[in-house]
Amino acid sequence: MDLKHYLQTNRSQIETALESLLPRPDAPPVRLNQAIRHSLMGGGKRLRPILVLASADAVGGDRSRLLPFACGMECLHTYSLIHDDLPAMDNDDYRRGRPTCHKQFDEATAILAGDALLTLAFELASRPIDGIDPEVVLTAVRQLAVDAGFAGMVGGQMLDLLAENRKVQLDELRIIHRMKTGALIRCACEAGARLGGGNPSQIEALKHYGAAIGLAFQITDDLLDVIGDSHLMGKATGKDQANAKATYPAIMGVPAAQSLASEQVQSALRCLEPFSSVADPLRNLARYIIERTN
Amino acid sequence: MDLKHYLQTNRSQIETALESLLPRPDAPPVRLNQAIRHSLMGGGKRLRPILVLASADAVGGDRSRLLPFACGMECLHTYSLIHDDLPAMDNDDYRRGRPTCHKQFDEATAILAGDALLTLAFELASRPIDGIDPEVVLTAVRQLAVDAGFAGMVGGQMLDLLAENRKVQLDELRIIHRMKTGALIRCACEAGARLGGGNPSQIEALKHYGAAIGLAFQITDDLLDVIGDSHLMGKATGKDQANAKATYPAIMGVPAAQSLASEQVQSALRCLEPFSSVADPLRNLARYIIERTN
Repeated sequence: MDLKHYLQTNRSQIETALESLLPRPDAPPVRLNQAIRHSLMGGGKRLRPILVLASADAVGGDRSRLLPFACGMECLHTYSLIHDDLPAMDNDDYRRGRPTCHKQFDEATAILAGDALLTLAFELASRPIDGIDPEVVLTAVRQLAVDAGFAGMVGGQMLDLLAENRKVQLDELRIIHRMKTGALIRCACEAGARLGGGNPSQIEALKHYGAAIGLAFQITDDLLDVIGDSHLMGKATGKDQANAKATYPAIMGVPAAQSLASEQVQSALRCLEPFSSVADPLRNLARYIIERTN
Repeated sequence: MDLKHYLQTNRSQIETALESLLPRPDAPPVRLNQAIRHSLMGGGKRLRPILVLASADAVGGDRSRLLPFACGMECLHTYSLIHDDLPAMDNDDYRRGRPTCHKQFDEATAILAGDALLTLAFELASRPIDGIDPEVVLTAVRQLAVDAGFAGMVGGQMLDLLAENRKVQLDELRIIHRMKTGALIRCACEAGARLGGGNPSQIEALKHYGAAIGLAFQITDDLLDVIGDSHLMGKATGKDQANAKATYPAIMGVPAAQSLASEQVQSALRCLEPFSSVADPLRNLARYIIERTN
C-alpha cells in the first residue's frame, strides 16, 4: 500500500467531515467560530482521527459511522494545542507555520476556542452509532474523558510544566509523556477498535499498539526538535534545549532515543500479529511515525 | 417544607459525593489536585446539581443514582468560573470570599484546573445509571455538551466579552444570558427529568421550568450587583456598573428588572402545575432564586 496516498485520502475524508460537523461559518459568535476554524482547519496530520478509522478498519468496522467520534478526537487534540500555546503555558507564537490562536485573535478568545473545542469533542463522541450498542459508545466516551483529563492529558501537561528547569529522570519523563501525549493516541486506537465492533482481545491488542506508537511519536517529536528542519516543521526547533526542557535525546542521547523509538515500533508491530492485511495501514503508520520529518 | 434545611441536606449530600468522585487528595499532580479542590470544594450554592436531583425527584426517579451526573454539572460550572475569572477574561481576584484559582496558584494551573474539571464533568456524566437505558444517558451527555459549548455557555461568555463597553439592547442581553447562564440551568432540570425516568412531557415541562428560573437567576445576579451586600456575596459588588457592563437593571431600571424576574418565577411555577407535591422543592427553589441575598 501507498501510505502517502492513504494519509491524504484519510485527511481529506476527515476534513470534509469536520467541516460538516462544525457550526456553519456564519453562526454567531462569529469571532469564536473563526478562532475555532483558524486552529482546527489550519492543517495538521490528523493522526488521532486516522488512528480511530484505521483501528475500526482493522476489526472490520464501518469507518464512515465513526467519523463524528474521530473528528471529536481531533477537536480535543486541537483544544490542547490552543491552551498549551497560551502565554501562561508554553507561550508559542507559531503552530503549523501560522500564528497561534491567541496571536491571531487574543487570549480570551483562544481560551474560549479551546473550551468550545473540548466541549464539542464530547458532543461528537456521544452521538449514537448505528449498529453499536449505546452502552459501548458510553464506555468509549468515558474512556476518552479519563484519557484526556486529570489522569491523562491535562495531568501530563501539568507534570510537564512542573518539570521545567529541573533535572528529570527517564522514569519520570515516561510517566509525563504517557499521560500528556500517549493517553490520547492510545485512546484513539482503543476507541476505534471498540466502536468498530472489535472483540475484547482485539481492543486490548490495539490499545497496546496505541501505547507503543504514542511513545515512539513523542520520542520522534523530541528528536525532530533537535535534528529537524524548522521550515518543514512549521514551528521553531531547538526550543526544548533553549528552555532546558527534559526530552528523550537530552536524557539518553540521540542514538539511544532513536533505538528506543524503534523498539516501540517493533512492539507495536507485534501487537498487530493476530490481524490480517486489513491492519496494514496501522503497520505502515507505526513505521511512518518514526520516519516522518515533521 | 423548610427550604433552608432542604438546601443544606442537598449540599451536604452533593459535597460528600464530590469528595468521593474526585481524585484522592494525594493523587499526582498534587498541585493540579489542590487547585481543583480549592475551586470546587470552596463553598457555592450547588444550584445546578440540586436542580438535577430535585428534577429527578419530581418525576419519581432515584436521586442517589444521579449523584455522579449531578456532580459532573457542578464540575462543569466550576470550570466556567475558573476560566471566567482569568486575567484575560473578567480578571477577578476573589470568588466566594476566597482568592480565585489563578490568584491562589497561577494562571497555567488555573487554565489546567478548568480543563481538568470540564473533562471530569463528562467522565461523571457518562457513567452508566442502573435502570436507565444507556441511550438515554448518551442523550443527556450530548445535551450537556450542546448546552455547555459553542451554542451555549462558552458562546454566551464570548458574546458577553464582545458586548463590553458598547450599548446592548434587551433582546441581545437575553440571548447572551440564555446561553451564558441559562443553558446550563435549563440543562440541569432537563437532565434530572430525563435520567430520573420522566416521560417526554415531564422532561419538556422541567426544561421550560429551568429556562424560566435561569433567566430569573441571572436578573437577580445583576440586581445583587447593584443593591447587594459585598460581604454577603463574598465578592465585589458595583463591578458591573464600574465596567459599564450591560445588565438588566442598567437597561430596564431596577423596578422593571425585579418585575421581569418575578414574571419568570410565575412562569416557572406554571410549568410545575401537572406535578404533585413531590415538586414542592422545585417550587420553593424558584421563589428562593429571586429572594436570595447572595
